[in-house]
Amino acid sequence: MEFEEKVTAVEHLFDGTVIDLDRETVQLPNGKTSYREIVRHHGAVGVIAITPADKMVFIKQWRAPLGQVTLEIPAGKIEPNEQNSPLETAMRELNEEVRYQAEKLELIMPFYTSPGFADEKIYLYHASGLTPVKEELPQDEDEFLEKVELTQAEALKAMQSGLICDSKTIMAVMFWQLMR
Amino acid sequence: MEFEEKVTAVEHLFDGTVIDLDRETVQLPNGKTSYREIVRHHGAVGVIAITPADKMVFIKQWRAPLGQVTLEIPAGKIEPNEQNSPLETAMRELNEEVRYQAEKLELIMPFYTSPGFADEKIYLYHASGLTPVKEELPQDEDEFLEKVELTQAEALKAMQSGLICDSKTIMAVMFWQLMR
Repeated sequence: MEFEEKVTAVEHLFDGTVIDLDRETVQLPNGKTSYREIVRHHGAVGVIAITPADKMVFIKQWRAPLGQVTLEIPAGKIEPNEQNSPLETAMRELNEEVRYQAEKLELIMPFYTSPGFADEKIYLYHASGLTPVKEELPQDEDEFLEKVELTQAEALKAMQSGLICDSKTIMAVMFWQLMR
Repeated sequence: MEFEEKVTAVEHLFDGTVIDLDRETVQLPNGKTSYREIVRHHGAVGVIAITPADKMVFIKQWRAPLGQVTLEIPAGKIEPNEQNSPLETAMRELNEEVRYQAEKLELIMPFYTSPGFADEKIYLYHASGLTPVKEELPQDEDEFLEKVELTQAEALKAMQSGLICDSKTIMAVMFWQLMR
């Protein structure tokens, strides 16, 4: 079966701070015309960070799209100067958000959050050998974050209560379970 | 610490077929003003379907945002008339996309794909007791799908090769590993 859609036109609808929005005109495998709404994103990292006390490190923060507080793993957008090195982003976010440095940062897998309408790719890292950072990078003064460290049982409870509710963080907790 | 942001204005930027786009003006906990770009989505379901032969059921399809073919679990958008019952969506998609009916459909968890910029919520179901459907629901003639059934070892290989690459499907495979 032929799957590929050929892009015949691109309409650039929105240029944002975090996302852009395109509408593509595509030719389907059967020759018909269709349209695809595509959110463009520069990519991000998420860090599975487990402390020597065997707790996972989370960030408590407000999420505007959900209108609620969540617990998520440390994460952040890949900056333009980091495009070739998501590892740098992971190291930076680990410092900025939770004040840890890692002996080892290993790429578990990259994944797409929502391939139906967005190209956002998250590089999921596993940080081990955590120690407090010596030099703290400046935090964005308009970010309101609180570090929370949970045992695996507490993390599973937070998943049940809905405080842990996003794909990268649920994947992180499942990865932790599979490590055992 | 105070986390909540108060929405002071909403600008509706785009009305699409799959997504809408809003830009909210918010008041931060420190009193300052900021802006949030928010993709609105009606929600979706994903179905972890494991056959009596212990294979997981996937869909091969083209993904315009990624410009590639992927293997994903059966999934689909919640239609307006299904808003109170994602279970119906799960049953419908299982029939439309892979021609199975399930003895039991159990909600594993709902999750948000990308809480930084989107409100898309996916209800992840586990379908068991699969049998071929008696009455096939009509397929969208502009959807080009192929059913693929994989053993767990084959699914893990497809994750490594990047053919399985989206959050809901990786979560499905991890869930399958944890079931053992």
